Amino acid sequence: MDGDDKNMLQLYDLAGANVDLRFSPHCWKTRMALAHKGLQTVYVPWRFRQKDSIAFSGQGMVPVLVHDKQVVSDSWQIALHLDRAFPEHPLFESPAALASAHFVNSWVDTVLIPLVASITMLDVWNILHVDDKAYFRETREKRFGTTLENLTADQAGNIQRLRQSLAPLQRTLRQHPFLSGETPAYADYSVFGVLMWARCCSGAKLLEVGDVVYAWRERLLNAFDGFARSAPCIECDC
Amino acid sequence: MDGDDKNMLQLYDLAGANVDLRFSPHCWKTRMALAHKGLQTVYVPWRFRQKDSIAFSGQGMVPVLVHDKQVVSDSWQIALHLDRAFPEHPLFESPAALASAHFVNSWVDTVLIPLVASITMLDVWNILHVDDKAYFRETREKRFGTTLENLTADQAGNIQRLRQSLAPLQRTLRQHPFLSGETPAYADYSVFGVLMWARCCSGAKLLEVGDVVYAWRERLLNAFDGFARSAPCIECDC
Repeated sequence: MDGDDKNMLQLYDLAGANVDLRFSPHCWKTRMALAHKGLQTVYVPWRFRQKDSIAFSGQGMVPVLVHDKQVVSDSWQIALHLDRAFPEHPLFESPAALASAHFVNSWVDTVLIPLVASITMLDVWNILHVDDKAYFRETREKRFGTTLENLTADQAGNIQRLRQSLAPLQRTLRQHPFLSGETPAYADYSVFGVLMWARCCSGAKLLEVGDVVYAWRERLLNAFDGFARSAPCIECDC
Repeated sequence: MDGDDKNMLQLYDLAGANVDLRFSPHCWKTRMALAHKGLQTVYVPWRFRQKDSIAFSGQGMVPVLVHDKQVVSDSWQIALHLDRAFPEHPLFESPAALASAHFVNSWVDTVLIPLVASITMLDVWNILHVDDKAYFRETREKRFGTTLENLTADQAGNIQRLRQSLAPLQRTLRQHPFLSGETPAYADYSVFGVLMWARCCSGAKLLEVGDVVYAWRERLLNAFDGFARSAPCIECDC
């Protein structure tokens, strides 16, 4: 940041009962994007019921990025903003790469997140601050049309369905080290953010150790000096 | 082709009982790629049982591209070959665009094709040459684990499941005219090829008229002077 206020970055970031546990899939997309750009950022912990503290963004969800005097919400919009404001180390290498990364991100949001939710949603509820638990249960049970317990009851079946859905990822990663080619970029962080959500909250083994997606996740856990691997999570008992 | 034999292109292309009916989804991916490059091509009609006539390719499926002395099978490999051999008008704008287009193509092959097959497979059988019908039924009923009639019995339900699967496409096409950005490229042709397969063989209405995917398909039907729109198909009673 070079002490320059114009590059002052703050990210409002979902936290659990343990304030160091940062687990939102969408916040993790943004965290990786900020690490990719090498941008120092002040991470501001935020909980679901603290709507007032992000009312300035005109909506009630995180991530919210504050960059100088600009406020950007929604992880996809934040990624676009970062490439405009900090063109070095692009998250989207070309206009075609951007549009296809949008497809990947849309697949993540409509296919991958519901499948991972069917495995981890009760684990997520478990790590929440007590002030957030009732809100989370009510909104998510309405969204999924069933209790968190019912949603996640068939762990083996839900893990099998998740693994079946990974075929497009597996085919791509057999030919390319990353979804963005030789080096990772936003398409990778979009998928990886969802796996970090599970890693932070849940002991469920989503991936088989021999899977090409497992190896790709390892590479991203190690990226940026182990930025994601060193994040507090359930798996590592921190 | 400028009369230059080095640029002589032949594509072995799946045909129906009506030899002008060319309907393979993978051949359509390649047809659009060739049109995108502006490459004149001799299309050689081929049927499922004519394995001998493409034995020179070392395998038994189309598309097979013969370019000068080179033989390339598999639509994805053909696309890579075309960008190497004819760099103008790239199908993949950048290495990141290529990797993300590979994800789109993998989603097409593992998600979209099985869903469209569950609607159109009996229609495909109907337009085949009599020599191909038994082979097609036997291999496809083995692949799907059921008869063509059972596979396609629940048309309304299968169309609904297909439309639900289009969410990643819809979200992307609300923001970009094409999956490849401002102009179409291989990621678009990959999805479009599957819709051409259905259009050529089946009267089923896969897309809602107001859908952003419908409007995008219209743009691709009109591309290259209506190359795809003018192709013989069931829908147009040709």
